[in-house]
Amino acid sequence: MYRTHTCGELNIKNINTSVTLSGWVQRSRDLGGMTFIDLRDRYGITQLVFNMETNSNLCKKARKLGREYVIQVEGMVTERSNKNPKMPTGEIEITVNNLNVLNSSELPPFTIEDETDGGEELRMKYRYLDLRRYCMKESLVLRNMMAQEVRKYFVSNDFLEIETPVLIKSTPEGARDFVVPSRMNAGQFYALPQSPQTFKQLLMIAGYDRYFQIVKCFRDEDFRADRQPEFTQIDCEMAFVEQEDILSVFEGMVKHLLKEIKGINIEDRFPRLTYREAMEKYGNDKPDIRFGMTLHDMTSIAKGKGFNVFDSVEYIGGICADGCSEYSRKQIDELTDFIKRPQIGAKGLVYIKYHSDGTFKSSIDKFFNPDALKSCAEVFNAKPGDLILIIAGEKESTLNTLSELRLEMGRKMDFINPNTYAPLWVLDFPLLEWDEEEKRFFAMHHPFTSPRPEDIELLDTDPGKVHANAYDMVINGVEVGGGSIRIHNQELQQKMFKTLGFTEEEANDQFGFLMNAFRYGAPPHGGIAFGFDRLVALFAGLGSIRDVIAFPKNNSGRDIMIDSPANIPDNLLKELSLKINRES
Amino acid sequence: MYRTHTCGELNIKNINTSVTLSGWVQRSRDLGGMTFIDLRDRYGITQLVFNMETNSNLCKKARKLGREYVIQVEGMVTERSNKNPKMPTGEIEITVNNLNVLNSSELPPFTIEDETDGGEELRMKYRYLDLRRYCMKESLVLRNMMAQEVRKYFVSNDFLEIETPVLIKSTPEGARDFVVPSRMNAGQFYALPQSPQTFKQLLMIAGYDRYFQIVKCFRDEDFRADRQPEFTQIDCEMAFVEQEDILSVFEGMVKHLLKEIKGINIEDRFPRLTYREAMEKYGNDKPDIRFGMTLHDMTSIAKGKGFNVFDSVEYIGGICADGCSEYSRKQIDELTDFIKRPQIGAKGLVYIKYHSDGTFKSSIDKFFNPDALKSCAEVFNAKPGDLILIIAGEKESTLNTLSELRLEMGRKMDFINPNTYAPLWVLDFPLLEWDEEEKRFFAMHHPFTSPRPEDIELLDTDPGKVHANAYDMVINGVEVGGGSIRIHNQELQQKMFKTLGFTEEEANDQFGFLMNAFRYGAPPHGGIAFGFDRLVALFAGLGSIRDVIAFPKNNSGRDIMIDSPANIPDNLLKELSLKINRES
Repeated sequence: MYRTHTCGELNIKNINTSVTLSGWVQRSRDLGGMTFIDLRDRYGITQLVFNMETNSNLCKKARKLGREYVIQVEGMVTERSNKNPKMPTGEIEITVNNLNVLNSSELPPFTIEDETDGGEELRMKYRYLDLRRYCMKESLVLRNMMAQEVRKYFVSNDFLEIETPVLIKSTPEGARDFVVPSRMNAGQFYALPQSPQTFKQLLMIAGYDRYFQIVKCFRDEDFRADRQPEFTQIDCEMAFVEQEDILSVFEGMVKHLLKEIKGINIEDRFPRLTYREAMEKYGNDKPDIRFGMTLHDMTSIAKGKGFNVFDSVEYIGGICADGCSEYSRKQIDELTDFIKRPQIGAKGLVYIKYHSDGTFKSSIDKFFNPDALKSCAEVFNAKPGDLILIIAGEKESTLNTLSELRLEMGRKMDFINPNTYAPLWVLDFPLLEWDEEEKRFFAMHHPFTSPRPEDIELLDTDPGKVHANAYDMVINGVEVGGGSIRIHNQELQQKMFKTLGFTEEEANDQFGFLMNAFRYGAPPHGGIAFGFDRLVALFAGLGSIRDVIAFPKNNSGRDIMIDSPANIPDNLLKELSLKINRES
Repeated sequence: MYRTHTCGELNIKNINTSVTLSGWVQRSRDLGGMTFIDLRDRYGITQLVFNMETNSNLCKKARKLGREYVIQVEGMVTERSNKNPKMPTGEIEITVNNLNVLNSSELPPFTIEDETDGGEELRMKYRYLDLRRYCMKESLVLRNMMAQEVRKYFVSNDFLEIETPVLIKSTPEGARDFVVPSRMNAGQFYALPQSPQTFKQLLMIAGYDRYFQIVKCFRDEDFRADRQPEFTQIDCEMAFVEQEDILSVFEGMVKHLLKEIKGINIEDRFPRLTYREAMEKYGNDKPDIRFGMTLHDMTSIAKGKGFNVFDSVEYIGGICADGCSEYSRKQIDELTDFIKRPQIGAKGLVYIKYHSDGTFKSSIDKFFNPDALKSCAEVFNAKPGDLILIIAGEKESTLNTLSELRLEMGRKMDFINPNTYAPLWVLDFPLLEWDEEEKRFFAMHHPFTSPRPEDIELLDTDPGKVHANAYDMVINGVEVGGGSIRIHNQELQQKMFKTLGFTEEEANDQFGFLMNAFRYGAPPHGGIAFGFDRLVALFAGLGSIRDVIAFPKNNSGRDIMIDSPANIPDNLLKELSLKINRES
């Protein structure tokens, strides 16, 4: 038996108990005649003490132990003279009488501490050492807890967890699939699922009513920051439901998680914004509503004052920063530089300072007299002491810029509380997005999303105007998930494919099985999926999903620890009826 | 709102309640002035009644509904005159006052009944209809329950559920990997995991102590009956443990499942057999111990009687079938034919009938006098009335034949109770298997399995004699899982790779990351994995894992519902730097 207790459980109640512990040497201190070792395992840290006077051989042996050695010790739980109230085991130490080295360790390439000296590349290569750090362990423990609570919630709400296949079929809609060559069907390929979408719809057609799964999904993207080729989804589908039923179930899940994991009780219904409202008020379909400072449209009142920039643009809008009227020239310049950065690309920033004494100072004083500035200020309900920041230009891009500016001001004004969770629903998305390059419509959500019944006629006349029965949940400015009511009628699904530019043959080839299924009694149904990695990162207060994934890949899709992807032997390629095409 | 209740919950307590139900038309009967419809959903069946006299329009509308139409009805819960005590809803029916057809259905290609008229191929093509059958639903509900109970058990035992990656690296040891071409790393491939083996070991090295996961694994095999290219594993690893700790945890899991799912309490420790004992007593390393009739070795006493067949062979053994001495010539011939089938391939069967009157009759009377036959009978503890069945030949193959014969007799004698669960551990497997074709040793379990410490020296002198710290759990003759204590020492792991014929370069190339990890304080660790599909099938009393998988593939690895694998477009191939090799 390697241990009687873990390194996290012994305390003052265990005094004078003889125990055996196993773990890693976290650190070691030699103080005169004593050697102290912090022994670490998953559960905590326990201090070991070796005494040169009473057992010099053992103490000498202990002094030879390096960091990260794996040891087993027997000893007596004794009360510490120098207690550490911050640690659960801080009142005791183990007076060791036997030491067994289970494994040695070379010096780790970086320190096993929360504030480590290892860079990301090094930590990824030695991920098994990186994962020893307390903060990493906390992330994975949190992830485990959240997974269990998610399942508990769904199971208690009569959902069935059903596994859908990983080896499926490639479909060109959406992101690029990873494919898997089939040895037994030469020249043919499976694909890895980007989501279990069609299978969960088939489960509804099969009558399973309430399905959920925490499931790996795959997307072969040109990696952007903080995307992973494999990611985990909380996936769900329900039959005989309307949008309201699904919102209510997932709102319930988030409330359950906030309560169980964070101890936060939200009684009220989550706020709801239409896509349009979100864009107009926040310039963003995933607004951070932890603070206000919403956007205001001043297009109509700002035009016609002889300021050419305003007169020539589609949209003029801004935000009002409470109590910032005394911002310096330098501060305003910084904001201007911020929105002019290439990532944002705005042309310029107009300000109106509404001084405490009731006077105005603005970068457009030349065109706007005090009365005109006052009218502007009224649009924002500004009061003396406030600062109004204005951007003008093409509407959608200006809204985006204002969103960035609002978030930047939120950060500057310390409005963004990391311990607050502000979820909301964004509803009524457009069904389709026009792609100017390919000159065709794409599904904004996916091709199975139902148009709102009252908009179906528009599909023939003005598809861009059709709204979808689709919804996203946003928390603190992060889109954590989204879903829709699905089409369950074969003709409507065919029409949708046609609108998306599928020929009948293509639609049949790729989704024939689903359209066939619609022929045999498909119930009304809908669902939603949440990004589990993202949700865990949000709960962990971490910016990157890599920090909540045990073995993530880097931005080029490589696992640098195992050095994958890698070459495969020629005979395997041959068995798969494949050749590497060196030309491309 | 599509429904106020499900089709499984209304009973006599709900009389005179106005309700709305939605579901599928299971069957419909017109009886004079009434039409009765069984409305089905996931939760049950509720009888709807339409009356031609009181509402002829509605009744006519109901008479037009076909099987599997999806409908919504409003009506009043009324007491049935003709109650059906077998159904939870059998005391009531719904007097319908409104009927809404949500979707029509073509006539399904087979009947949606447990005893369906659809063949397997047809049912697989229309799996979404097959899954509507009650028996299929029961399987998936059971699977869901078992998954939840497994997790509950592990979580309550301080295990962490940690997701390991699906896109990993190909390794030639073991079965063939499925591979995934990397677009961003031209000519390179990921592989899909046959198990999370190396990752769970790295988690132990990272200090996670107790890991589990219910996880998809992949194996590109030439499909044998009842194998699937993707399958699900209950995977587990523990640090600072010995074999006994792991056996105890997994024995606990099986006991938990039997109790929670089947209401069966097993108090005793599961029986244990060494691999050798299992082979000697049952001819099989996965014995069905629901009944006895064990094998007996009679080599030493059966030789030297002048019977050439016996005198020339390595091994002579048999079983004793209680009370079967009066088996007819025909019955014995059937058994002889059974063991001579090509799948088994034995040469012949010798019998000794120990008649109730104490006399013997045997097919080897010519060589064995009554005293000699009696001595044989004593080996088996046979009593008057018993039948002894004997096979002779090369030892391993004869043991296998006897195992088949034992199981066949078990079936004939009705010893195999499907409601009994007889788990056991098989221990002390050989570490290595000699492959005569490749003239090298293969790991019987996998290359990370630890030899028993007392056998390590034999690795150099007589590797075939080395025993492993490995164990299998067997229930009712089915190997449900197995595992081992792992090597955690870099030198021993290197020696193991060498014994398996890896060059140092190959070992480094494929498992360098693991051997590196062993350098930084690897704790003693071990684990186990259970085949979840197999375990569910066992609990469901079903012979095939296909019946407990929502969307399985057929024996050629095809999903015939979605028609996958399939061709992919040339541009995708090109992006992946691949060409189809038509020559091979």
